[in-house]
Amino acid sequence: MRRSRKGLPLSVDAAAPSAVELAAAVNEQLRDYLRERRRDAAYIGADYAVLTEAVEEFVLRGGKRLRPAFAYWGWRAVAGTEPGPEVLKLFSALELLHACALVHDDVIDASATRRGLPTVHRIFSERHRSNNWQGSPEQFGLSSAILLGDLALVWADDIIASAAIDADAHRRVQRVWAAIRTEVLGGQYLDIVAESSGAETVASALTVNIYKTASYTISRPLQLGAAAAADCPEILEAFHELGTGLGVAFQLRDDVLGVFGDPAVTGKPSGDDLRSGKRTVLLAEAIELAEKHDPDGARLLRTSVGTDLTDAQVKDLCQVIESVGALAAVEGRIDTLTRRALDILDAAPVDLQAKAGLAELARLAANRTA
Amino acid sequence: MRRSRKGLPLSVDAAAPSAVELAAAVNEQLRDYLRERRRDAAYIGADYAVLTEAVEEFVLRGGKRLRPAFAYWGWRAVAGTEPGPEVLKLFSALELLHACALVHDDVIDASATRRGLPTVHRIFSERHRSNNWQGSPEQFGLSSAILLGDLALVWADDIIASAAIDADAHRRVQRVWAAIRTEVLGGQYLDIVAESSGAETVASALTVNIYKTASYTISRPLQLGAAAAADCPEILEAFHELGTGLGVAFQLRDDVLGVFGDPAVTGKPSGDDLRSGKRTVLLAEAIELAEKHDPDGARLLRTSVGTDLTDAQVKDLCQVIESVGALAAVEGRIDTLTRRALDILDAAPVDLQAKAGLAELARLAANRTA
Repeated sequence: MRRSRKGLPLSVDAAAPSAVELAAAVNEQLRDYLRERRRDAAYIGADYAVLTEAVEEFVLRGGKRLRPAFAYWGWRAVAGTEPGPEVLKLFSALELLHACALVHDDVIDASATRRGLPTVHRIFSERHRSNNWQGSPEQFGLSSAILLGDLALVWADDIIASAAIDADAHRRVQRVWAAIRTEVLGGQYLDIVAESSGAETVASALTVNIYKTASYTISRPLQLGAAAAADCPEILEAFHELGTGLGVAFQLRDDVLGVFGDPAVTGKPSGDDLRSGKRTVLLAEAIELAEKHDPDGARLLRTSVGTDLTDAQVKDLCQVIESVGALAAVEGRIDTLTRRALDILDAAPVDLQAKAGLAELARLAANRTA
Repeated sequence: MRRSRKGLPLSVDAAAPSAVELAAAVNEQLRDYLRERRRDAAYIGADYAVLTEAVEEFVLRGGKRLRPAFAYWGWRAVAGTEPGPEVLKLFSALELLHACALVHDDVIDASATRRGLPTVHRIFSERHRSNNWQGSPEQFGLSSAILLGDLALVWADDIIASAAIDADAHRRVQRVWAAIRTEVLGGQYLDIVAESSGAETVASALTVNIYKTASYTISRPLQLGAAAAADCPEILEAFHELGTGLGVAFQLRDDVLGVFGDPAVTGKPSGDDLRSGKRTVLLAEAIELAEKHDPDGARLLRTSVGTDLTDAQVKDLCQVIESVGALAAVEGRIDTLTRRALDILDAAPVDLQAKAGLAELARLAANRTA
């Protein structure tokens, strides 16, 4: 089999790469791009190199590369052919945008760990402390994380702006890119408002899911890939429907893992979402169901979620969530949403191999354990 | 006189607009653009409209529109003609980028006021408090300010990416735009490192000035305007030299105002920089000179700058800074830098009216009182 310059399998019949091959090809693009940007920024000074190196480390540290993978399949669905390295680089911008969202979100949630390691603001607080610097290590950590997130966002935008694709494709891509960023920031803001205002309806949690996760993780990446390949408004519409359902399912899986997940696999402490008081659909379902069938359980959920829980308290809460039927209800939603998304995919006039690839990715997103 | 659609004077001989006319034309572009973006984002929900409205309020609340003005004169210098509304819109992106830098900087510095009003993070903390929401009002304020800054940055990038200029001009503009954002983030990071590590040399403060202010306020905006107009590498080089000198002078004026400015005019409390411990060239000069001529003064500067000073202490510190000759030294630097910049301008092969406009702007930047 011939291989493209950037290591992605490139066969005459455009064979489907595995998720692992795809992630490796995206990583290669990111590594090359970040090396180049860091080298170009070196004139700004050695101190700044610490920040640009931290961007690189954070981005290359891990992650499933799910967003570029959806963009890849969005392209394949329409083009039928393998995208060239320049297009793969374009899709990699999604990972830099994601880095900004994660780093800023960790500041917003005051999270201690990410991908099993200390969060960026904690790494920089620690740097301040070990240098015996003046002022507050926490403020320095916070400030560095804000700037690091900004830089990741800026470098993501630069990839999109300078992509070597034709002018029409560029305009189409730019429209999707404008939407994805405005939507994910909307989702993040709606999330903190829901948490602060104590919104507890399923509807409110679903709205956050759509903008903070579904659009940003699946619909828009799929559309980005398709828009880069061709002018195809109907496919974009199908991807919007399919991606929204699948993206919500993806987030519901995240909600389940945030309460019932295995810490050794997720890299987050067990019951993390219960301690942080995240307004998930799972929690909203549990409160609504407990209201009807288990008033004591409802009271327990309302008064203890979002507080500094012991492991025993987490266990009690998990017990309530399961016994009122909220876990089963959310699993049911995941199942329904995933099936419906697969039906839309099945009916869409897209490349067959892309259908298979997307169906695999869909199942992976809905049934993952981390 | 005919007027363009966007209210900028448009005469056959391309008469020079005043700084006030230019600011008004930029404001009109910003108002139209932000109205459009807010309307387009309305589907994301009523809660999000609070954040998008706050972006608009912050951007339209005030500001000298200095960066678009430099871009305007950069264009005029090369093109000789008046830019159309699309180009003026392009230059207005600099104000949205500036909004991001200011809002994030206010979080980083934990500043209480900006442009004479509460900072964005304080406005949102207050919203949290007055709604009697759950959790920490400060954390909500901080989180909202991070997201608001991100959104301003994203919307700035969208202007540049979708500018209606030809492909070559777009590539040239994009190169300058990539540099300006990477540099200003560098300047901000170098600034917090200098403040934390207690860097006290004039050289270190000057490096921060170059990237946090000079490049971002003058050199790169001038280049952005010139690059939008034509392919002119020599002019870009001249603008780099001229802009760096003038931009450093601009920041030195800021340093002087931050210590000796009239609070009624600057909108900041008197001696603000002394209380916050900002590592300015003025302070570095004062410490270096006091080391030689006034050891007690040097000790006073080292031990009290950056602490919670009384008005009497601020007065004492001002006295030291003036008596050791640091104020005069900085005024001398401002004068020399401005003269040299005006000489470069004088020798540059650019439009005569633009020379006059830029010279006026240069004097305004170096001699302002707020």
